[in-house]
Amino acid sequence: MKAAIIGGTGYGAIELIRLIHQHPYLEVGSVVSNSQAGNNFSESYPHLSGLTDQPLGKFDPETIAENHDIVFLATPSGVSSKLVPQLMETGIKCVDLSGDFRLRSSEQYETWYRRRPANHEYIQQAVYGLSEIYPEQIKTAALIANPGCYPTAATLGLIPILTTNQADLASIIIDAKSGVSGAGRGLSLTSHYAEINENLKAYKLGSHQHIPEIEQVLSDESGTPITISFTTHLVPMTRGIMCTMYLTLNESISTKEVVDLYTNFYKNKSFVRIRPEGNIPATKEVHGSNYCDIGLHVDSRTNRLTVISVIDNLVKGAAGQAIQNANLMFGWDERSGLNQLPIYP
Amino acid sequence: MKAAIIGGTGYGAIELIRLIHQHPYLEVGSVVSNSQAGNNFSESYPHLSGLTDQPLGKFDPETIAENHDIVFLATPSGVSSKLVPQLMETGIKCVDLSGDFRLRSSEQYETWYRRRPANHEYIQQAVYGLSEIYPEQIKTAALIANPGCYPTAATLGLIPILTTNQADLASIIIDAKSGVSGAGRGLSLTSHYAEINENLKAYKLGSHQHIPEIEQVLSDESGTPITISFTTHLVPMTRGIMCTMYLTLNESISTKEVVDLYTNFYKNKSFVRIRPEGNIPATKEVHGSNYCDIGLHVDSRTNRLTVISVIDNLVKGAAGQAIQNANLMFGWDERSGLNQLPIYP
Amino acid sequence: MKAAIIGGTGYGAIELIRLIHQHPYLEVGSVVSNSQAGNNFSESYPHLSGLTDQPLGKFDPETIAENHDIVFLATPSGVSSKLVPQLMETGIKCVDLSGDFRLRSSEQYETWYRRRPANHEYIQQAVYGLSEIYPEQIKTAALIANPGCYPTAATLGLIPILTTNQADLASIIIDAKSGVSGAGRGLSLTSHYAEINENLKAYKLGSHQHIPEIEQVLSDESGTPITISFTTHLVPMTRGIMCTMYLTLNESISTKEVVDLYTNFYKNKSFVRIRPEGNIPATKEVHGSNYCDIGLHVDSRTNRLTVISVIDNLVKGAAGQAIQNANLMFGWDERSGLNQLPIYP
Amino acid sequence: MKAAIIGGTGYGAIELIRLIHQHPYLEVGSVVSNSQAGNNFSESYPHLSGLTDQPLGKFDPETIAENHDIVFLATPSGVSSKLVPQLMETGIKCVDLSGDFRLRSSEQYETWYRRRPANHEYIQQAVYGLSEIYPEQIKTAALIANPGCYPTAATLGLIPILTTNQADLASIIIDAKSGVSGAGRGLSLTSHYAEINENLKAYKLGSHQHIPEIEQVLSDESGTPITISFTTHLVPMTRGIMCTMYLTLNESISTKEVVDLYTNFYKNKSFVRIRPEGNIPATKEVHGSNYCDIGLHVDSRTNRLTVISVIDNLVKGAAGQAIQNANLMFGWDERSGLNQLPIYP
Repeated sequence: MKAAIIGGTGYGAIELIRLIHQHPYLEVGSVVSNSQAGNNFSESYPHLSGLTDQPLGKFDPETIAENHDIVFLATPSGVSSKLVPQLMETGIKCVDLSGDFRLRSSEQYETWYRRRPANHEYIQQAVYGLSEIYPEQIKTAALIANPGCYPTAATLGLIPILTTNQADLASIIIDAKSGVSGAGRGLSLTSHYAEINENLKAYKLGSHQHIPEIEQVLSDESGTPITISFTTHLVPMTRGIMCTMYLTLNESISTKEVVDLYTNFYKNKSFVRIRPEGNIPATKEVHGSNYCDIGLHVDSRTNRLTVISVIDNLVKGAAGQAIQNANLMFGWDERSGLNQLPIYP
Repeated sequence: MKAAIIGGTGYGAIELIRLIHQHPYLEVGSVVSNSQAGNNFSESYPHLSGLTDQPLGKFDPETIAENHDIVFLATPSGVSSKLVPQLMETGIKCVDLSGDFRLRSSEQYETWYRRRPANHEYIQQAVYGLSEIYPEQIKTAALIANPGCYPTAATLGLIPILTTNQADLASIIIDAKSGVSGAGRGLSLTSHYAEINENLKAYKLGSHQHIPEIEQVLSDESGTPITISFTTHLVPMTRGIMCTMYLTLNESISTKEVVDLYTNFYKNKSFVRIRPEGNIPATKEVHGSNYCDIGLHVDSRTNRLTVISVIDNLVKGAAGQAIQNANLMFGWDERSGLNQLPIYP
Repeated sequence: MKAAIIGGTGYGAIELIRLIHQHPYLEVGSVVSNSQAGNNFSESYPHLSGLTDQPLGKFDPETIAENHDIVFLATPSGVSSKLVPQLMETGIKCVDLSGDFRLRSSEQYETWYRRRPANHEYIQQAVYGLSEIYPEQIKTAALIANPGCYPTAATLGLIPILTTNQADLASIIIDAKSGVSGAGRGLSLTSHYAEINENLKAYKLGSHQHIPEIEQVLSDESGTPITISFTTHLVPMTRGIMCTMYLTLNESISTKEVVDLYTNFYKNKSFVRIRPEGNIPATKEVHGSNYCDIGLHVDSRTNRLTVISVIDNLVKGAAGQAIQNANLMFGWDERSGLNQLPIYP
Repeated sequence: MKAAIIGGTGYGAIELIRLIHQHPYLEVGSVVSNSQAGNNFSESYPHLSGLTDQPLGKFDPETIAENHDIVFLATPSGVSSKLVPQLMETGIKCVDLSGDFRLRSSEQYETWYRRRPANHEYIQQAVYGLSEIYPEQIKTAALIANPGCYPTAATLGLIPILTTNQADLASIIIDAKSGVSGAGRGLSLTSHYAEINENLKAYKLGSHQHIPEIEQVLSDESGTPITISFTTHLVPMTRGIMCTMYLTLNESISTKEVVDLYTNFYKNKSFVRIRPEGNIPATKEVHGSNYCDIGLHVDSRTNRLTVISVIDNLVKGAAGQAIQNANLMFGWDERSGLNQLPIYP
C-alpha cells in the first residue's frame, strides 16, 4: 500500500519516512511540500541521500487519491484544517498530525489556538487516535486526529487510575518536560542552540494548547469534567517527553497495587510498558521507539500518587502513533513497522 | 582575612576558590584534601594552572585555626560531622556545605541520610544559612549549616506565600530539576556522559534527603507542620536548578498581587529577583551567579499558584551562599565577591 | 541462525542486540557476561524491558558452540585474546570487536596496547573485517578482526586516493573527533558528564592504539609503508566519529575529479555514500545507521585534498560492521538487518 | 571612564557588559542598538534584570563622543565599516570587533567577505589588536581592529615556532573547532538546536573569511608569505574554540624544547599559559576567562609538531581581548576587569 506525506520538510514528515521505510506493507508513494516543490528531498535532508530520494511534489488532492491508499498530514495546525476536507472528498483515509481535528469543541479550539477552527462536519468525523484507548473506533475511521505529544504521554499515564474511584479528580497536576525537536524545524530564538543548551526553561504557563486536549480525554475516560494544572518545560535535548504527574488518592493504596492496576490495564498493549515498583523510566529508554514507559510511586506521607510517563515525542508522540493508527485502520498487526528497539545510548 | 577550604578536589571547593579569588577582603589561605595531600591543585584542575596553584594540605585543625579566619567545609555528609567539632574547639568560624548540621532532629537525619548524625551539641549551635531569611542569626553564628541546593531554590520560592494565609499548606508539590554537577565529581553510572546526555531522568522518588530540610524550613516559617511532595529530576546540563512548585490558593488572587507580595517581601535582598507578570526565569539566566530568580503565575481555572525558582546549584545553591554567609558573619556587604553578572550565553 | 554475544553489558553488545533484533535471518541465542551472570538483561538496560529480556549467561565455549552458529565478542582488548582460541577450537565462526586480532605484528601490539598479544596462530587466521575492502576474504573467514571505529572512518576515506599515485603518501594527517560512547560504559573522569559536557578535549596525542591499525591498512592498500599523524578529540555528544584528513596532492586535480574517483571506487558498495562537490557530511546524518558518508574538497591554494568521513561509531564503527561481516560470512545480502535509515534529528 | 557599546543585542555586546561590570576603571555609559532602540536591555536579556538595565539608544556619533571615552563596536562586518569613520571624526577611541578593519588589502577583503571594503584611509589607521603580539602599537592606536576568534587561537599558537627557522612554513594545517555561540544570535538552521545538538559538522571548507586574516599575521611574524590549510567545525557546545595545528619540523627537536621555547616567548604575558609536556588543554579549562592555553607535542615518528590552542571565543576571542586592548590604550594594567578564573565545571 502507498502512503502520501504532506508537509514534507518538517521533523514529523522525516520521522514518518524513517518508520515507513521499515514497514512490511506500506511504502512512501510521494512527499508533498508546497514550499519546496520540485526540490529533491536530500537537499533539505542529506541523511537521506541515495536512499528514499525523490522530488517533493505539490499538493493536489486528486492525484494523491489516485495513487495512494492513505495520507499522513504532517502540516501545522491551521493548514490541516484547509487540506483535510479536500482530501476527504476523494474518499482517501487521512491521519492528521496537527491539532486541528482533536478538540470536539470549536469554541475551545478558538480559545486555545487563537485561530479559526476546522469545519465542524469534519471534526465530527474525526476519531481521536490514542491507539491503546480507542482501537475499535480507529479501525473504522476515515479521519484520524493523531494525538499531541504531551497528551499522549499524559493521558496514557493517567487513564488507568482515573477509571477507578481512587483518585481525587480535582487534584491532577502535570509537570511536563520536552526535548527541543517538539518545537519543529522553524527558526525561533527558543530553538536557537546557544539559548537552549545548558538551559532549562518553562514556557506557556497555563496557556498551552494541549491543555483542553488532555482535559477532553481525561473527562471522557473518567466520566467527570476534569480541569488540570499543566506546566511545560524545554529540556536541552533533542528528543523525549516526560510527564511527572501528581494525584491525591482518596484511600490508602500501595505502589504495588497501583503497579498491578496499570499492568493489568495495559496487559495486551504492545507499546505501553509498566515498570515494576522502584523502577522509574528515563526518556532515553524509549528513544527512537514507539514505547510509552510508565513508572509509579505512592508516597504514603502525603497519600499522593506520582506517575512518570515517557515517550519519544517524534515517535509515540507523532509519527509512530500515526503509523500504529494506520496499521489499525488497515487491519494489520499494530506493531508493523514499529518493532525497532530503543536506540541506547 | 584568610579562608581555609576543606574537601579541596570537589566541585564545591573549586567554586569557592573561583569566588574568593574575586573577593575584596577574603583570600584562600590553604586548601585541604586528605586524599590528595601533597599534590598540586592544578593536577586535578588544570584550569587553575599558574593562578592559585598550591599544594593540597592535610587536615590539621590547630594549624588551620592559627593561620585562618574562617573554614569552609566542602566535604560530604558523614565527613563534616567528624571534622566540625575538632575545628569548633579551636574557636574558628565554620561554614559547612554538607547536610550534617542542617536538621535539628537527629532521628530525621538517621531516617533520611541512613547514617549516624553529628553530635547533638554542635547541631544546636548551628545556624541554618539561608541568607535572605536568617541574616541576624547568621551574623553572630559560630557554625553555619549552609543550605542544600534544592532547599535554597524551594524555600526562597515558597516562603513569601506561606507567610500569608492564602495558600493551602497541605497542597505543596515541588517538581525539582537539576543539572548533573549537583552529583559531584565522584564517578557513578548516573553521571556517566553517555547515560545522561540526551536523557531526562527522575530519581529518589519520595526518598531524597532534602525533603526533611525543606519541610523544617517551611514549617518554621509558616508556623505549621508541613509535609511536601518532592520529586527530583536529572537534566542533561552541568549547572542549574529549577523548582516548579504548585500550591492551591485559599482565595482568588491575581498573578499581579502575588508578584507584588514577593517583590515587597524581598525588596532589600540583593540576590533575589522577582520577575514581573508574564516573565518566567530560565536556569541560564543565573548561570555562574548568586541570584535566585523567581517567576509567578496564578491559574484562575484551577486556583493554583505556580512558583518557578531558579538558581545556579554551585553558587547560590552551595559556594556562593557560603560566601554570602561569611560576608554576614564578618559584617561585610553581603555582595562582596559575589557581584559577577550571570554568564550568558 | 543463532548468535551468541559475549560481553553483554557494554555498549557494543547492546548495539548488536538492537541490530540483530531486526535481522531477517539471525536471532540472539544467548548473551554472556561473566561479571553479571544470572542477572536479567533489563536490570542493566531497562530500555529492553519486556523485549529481549533473558538472564545473562556464563562463558562456556562448548555450550555456546552447540547452540549457536556465530559468536560476536564485544569484550575488551586483552579479554578477547583469551576467549577466541577456546571458541575457535569448537569450530564456531567468531567476529571479535576488540583490537586483539587486528595487528599482524605482535611487536606492534605490545608497543601500542602495552599488553601481551594474542597467540600468533590465531592472529594469522584472522581476517580484517573492513567489509567494503576485503569482502572476498571475509566470506571464507573463520575469525573476523572487526575494525576499530577510527580506522573504519579513516581508511574508507583514504583508500581511494591512495590507490592512485596522486597523493604524497608521507603527508597524511588525520584529525579525528569522536562522541563519548566510544569510551564505553566503564566509569572514568573523562566520561564524567560535568567534565565532558560543554568541553572539547584532545587525548592520547601520538599514542592512540588505532595508529598502527590505520597504518597497516593504508600500507597494504597503497603498497608502500605509510606513517600518519593522528590526533583524537572527545566531542560532547554520545555517538559519531568524524575524521578530517589532509593530503598533499602530487598534481593539480579538481574536487570534481576526486568526487568522481571516490564515487566510482565505491559504486557497488551499499554503505559508503560519496557526497557531491560542495556537500560535506555531518555525523548526525549517519546517526544510528551503518553508513559511512564521505565529503571531499581540493584547496587549489595549497594543493591539498581534505577528506571528511563520518560514521556512527557504534554501528559502522562496531556492531553494524560486525553484522555486515556476518552477512558476508553466511552468504546473505550484506544489508540484512542493517537497512535502517539514519535517525534525524 | 565610560564606554559606549554599539550592537547591543548580540552576544559580543552582552559579554562586553559582563566584563566591564567588573572593571575597576571602566563603566558602561550607554548601549546602542538601532534595531531595538527604546527597549530596555532586560527585555532581550532577562539575566540582566535589575542589574545594568537601561534603555537601548540610537546611534548618534556626537552624543556618543560627548559622553564616553571609548567605543566598542560589536556590530557585524559591513556595518562597522560605515560607523567607524563617523566615530573617528569625533576623535573618540574605537575598538571594532568586526572583520572590517583587519585586512590591510581591500582586494582580499572583497574576495573573502564578498562585500565592499571599508574606506582605505581608516584601514590604514587601524592597529590589529592581538594584544600579546602588538602591545606597543595598541597603546597609541586610535582604532583597534580586534582579532577574530579563530585567528586569535591560531596565531598565538603558531607565532613562537614561526619566529624560529625550525618549521616548514608551507606545511601549516589548522584544524579548528568552535562552539555555536560564535555564529551569534541571528537565527539560522545551522544554529537550530535540533540540528546541532548531537552533531559535529564541518563548514566553509577553504572559504572561511578568517583565512586571509591568519595568513596576514603569520606572514608578518615569519617574514615570509604563508598559505595555510584551514578547516572549521561546529561542535555541540556553546563556548570554546580549539585549534589543532600541524607543522612539519625542519630538524629534530623534542617536545620539551618546544615547551621551553613557548614558555619563554610568552613569559611576561598574563593571558597565555603554556602547558608542560604531556598536558594538553581542553576548552572548558578557559571557559568564561581571557586565557589562551597552549599544549605542545612533537611526534618523532613523523617529525611533526602538533600545537593545541584553546580560548573562550566570546572572551579572548572577542570581548575580553577588546577590553585587554582598551586597558593597553588607557595605560592600565592589561588584566583590569579580566582577572576572573575560568568557571569550572
